[in-house]
Amino acid sequence: MTRPYLQMTQEELKQEYAAVCAAYENAKSKNLKLNMARGKPGREQLDGVSDILTVLSDAADCFDDGLDVRNYGELMGVPAARRYFAELLGVRPEQTFIGGSASLQLMFDTISKAYTHGLLHSEKPWSKLERVKFLCPSPGYDRHFKITETFGAEMIVIPMTAEGPDMDMVEKYIQDPDVRGMWCVPKYSNPGGVIYSDATVRRIAAMKPAAKDFLLMWDNAYCVHEFDGDFVPFEDILSLCAAAGNPDMPFEFASTSKITLPGSGISVMAASEANLAYMQKLLTVQIISFDKVNQLRHVRYLKDKAHTLEIMKRHAAVLKPRFEAVLYALDTNIAPLDIAKWNRPKGGYFVSVDAMSGTAKRTLALCKEAGVTMTGAGATFPYGKDPQDSNIRIAPSFPPIEELRDAMEVFCLCLRMAALERCMNA
Amino acid sequence: MTRPYLQMTQEELKQEYAAVCAAYENAKSKNLKLNMARGKPGREQLDGVSDILTVLSDAADCFDDGLDVRNYGELMGVPAARRYFAELLGVRPEQTFIGGSASLQLMFDTISKAYTHGLLHSEKPWSKLERVKFLCPSPGYDRHFKITETFGAEMIVIPMTAEGPDMDMVEKYIQDPDVRGMWCVPKYSNPGGVIYSDATVRRIAAMKPAAKDFLLMWDNAYCVHEFDGDFVPFEDILSLCAAAGNPDMPFEFASTSKITLPGSGISVMAASEANLAYMQKLLTVQIISFDKVNQLRHVRYLKDKAHTLEIMKRHAAVLKPRFEAVLYALDTNIAPLDIAKWNRPKGGYFVSVDAMSGTAKRTLALCKEAGVTMTGAGATFPYGKDPQDSNIRIAPSFPPIEELRDAMEVFCLCLRMAALERCMNA
Repeated sequence: MTRPYLQMTQEELKQEYAAVCAAYENAKSKNLKLNMARGKPGREQLDGVSDILTVLSDAADCFDDGLDVRNYGELMGVPAARRYFAELLGVRPEQTFIGGSASLQLMFDTISKAYTHGLLHSEKPWSKLERVKFLCPSPGYDRHFKITETFGAEMIVIPMTAEGPDMDMVEKYIQDPDVRGMWCVPKYSNPGGVIYSDATVRRIAAMKPAAKDFLLMWDNAYCVHEFDGDFVPFEDILSLCAAAGNPDMPFEFASTSKITLPGSGISVMAASEANLAYMQKLLTVQIISFDKVNQLRHVRYLKDKAHTLEIMKRHAAVLKPRFEAVLYALDTNIAPLDIAKWNRPKGGYFVSVDAMSGTAKRTLALCKEAGVTMTGAGATFPYGKDPQDSNIRIAPSFPPIEELRDAMEVFCLCLRMAALERCMNA
Repeated sequence: MTRPYLQMTQEELKQEYAAVCAAYENAKSKNLKLNMARGKPGREQLDGVSDILTVLSDAADCFDDGLDVRNYGELMGVPAARRYFAELLGVRPEQTFIGGSASLQLMFDTISKAYTHGLLHSEKPWSKLERVKFLCPSPGYDRHFKITETFGAEMIVIPMTAEGPDMDMVEKYIQDPDVRGMWCVPKYSNPGGVIYSDATVRRIAAMKPAAKDFLLMWDNAYCVHEFDGDFVPFEDILSLCAAAGNPDMPFEFASTSKITLPGSGISVMAASEANLAYMQKLLTVQIISFDKVNQLRHVRYLKDKAHTLEIMKRHAAVLKPRFEAVLYALDTNIAPLDIAKWNRPKGGYFVSVDAMSGTAKRTLALCKEAGVTMTGAGATFPYGKDPQDSNIRIAPSFPPIEELRDAMEVFCLCLRMAALERCMNA
């Protein structure tokens, strides 16, 4: 019976439920242990770039323009690494700071410093303010939301559209001086896979927030991460903001975590020179420099943007069939039933499923029971609370493709069971 | 004229001053550019350990007990790295957290979290307290003091004795509930090279501070860093504190910065399991993991404590002649004049000179003018203020030994000039 559940009679729903339950019990009996929880590259991707390990192989390799990267110093990063990321992001090398293995750490640190010391244009540290509000386009990245949550910011859900965050709503909220910032993943947003439209990006750059120290957290995590089709160019948010009179509003972040090895990549924070000069004073208390050998290793391996895009094509060849497997399962098993919607991204690491309202938690509980681990329900919303209990993030990159197909079989069964239970109780 | 300046007549001082000035002008005319500012290993040391670069050379090397260190995950660090540092410090692997290239960052982070979130036994975050005081054994490490300074702690100078911090004074101050912590470098203290005596370490472990969340910052930076003689064993501060009823008081730090490559080492934070469980909850918001490939690379290279001590012998062979050159210059040029005292360390990275009161700043200004860069005067005291204007830190590790001899010649001249000026004006 493959027709929309909402058109079925209660009797038909019951029959369908019995059939789906039987299939589910059968799947459960296989004692699966499958994981689609995190945007982790799979083994094949890692093997494909592990030649990075030997790029620097002796002492003589460790010099960049006379600088011995093995020793202390150069807080801002190896100059060659600053030039590399500058080209990748379309900014100037002087606008970059090179970090360690995680851009998440640079993001955390930026917010942390806003709280402990304040930003360049802050009147006082945010910890001394009565309240701090932060705009959170949702569904979004759970780890972003956890950062603003841990510092006690009041998070405001901004709905995502096909063009990016709902800018009418954003422009309304930023008139409130307590609204101090906003999270953005401008390209292949996590999890919706949305590329912000030019119009949206320009509206963001031209915002006139009441808070003078408004912090635009621009996480360009998937800036070169197409798995289907050619590289999609993006505009430099620093230039756009500067042109609109907001030079110190944006902090942009990126990393090589999904270009080379996630456990040992390098990261970048790009911001106005005034912002970096301010941050440098604070950072110098904290660290002498991040790992410069690894910075140079990455530059020698990735070379430049053109070569990086070639490497991304190799990742794409591994990733594309995985996304196709996910979409095939959804198109075949779920589309005819009209119980969920999903995106068809061409880059990034996720498929975002909007299940029938009120069924996401139940779906994922059923998955878990059958040995399929997914990102927790609600994780894509601030405080882990999806008001519709609908959004589910699928991360297809890690499992071997046969396991992914098995996991999607189970996931579709669970989605159906949860929808049927909802329809039967309606 | 090589006799104590304080025994000279004004006429003799004048003659001596003229002679020293002439020698100084001569040195200045050489346009030197020498640096004894920082405890940076020299090129020879780095070359001696650069074979670490190829220890992990292909994908198959990147597994630790089945864990693929190239991928995301394992926040607490690669298990083999936790075991390695546990052996080095005499703690249990469960008491370790493995960080990135800088233990400084772990220290900063610990204090930062005390301010933003509070520690395990804090009633509230330190940022919400009216005042926070911190005990600073001095002379000490400038970067420690900068951390507590940047968060606004009131720093209290605790004099250093030959046995470690003046414990009578410490035990008095900790009765003040505003005193929330203390910096310690228990082995080859920076810059004095003091090894805390067993009695001092035990008194520290048994402290009964009024503040329930008193934070003992135990920076074991030079735990295996003998350059003269055999390894000097040290006691495990975690066990001592636990036995004294203070299990959650100490946070111990160490790194491989001066074992392998300072620009790309790994670091460790060791604390009670209760402390680490608390910190893990906070750290999980901040980072997915530090660089695990580099962690495994280090374990494979350093192997264990015994092998690490062998590597340290190679560093010692490079360092010992440098320290001898410093001491030779001081013994020959300064000792007969009775204008300064200094230590004779057997490990660590510094010689600490106590110049005639009121002459440190002038000495270093003269050095700078002659092209010799040293750690700034006062840097070894909180707020950069040495009440005696006396302490000077010499870092002999970086310059080639011929340059070091030249630099010490200049330094001794400057020390004499400053002392003579002081005596003539007295």
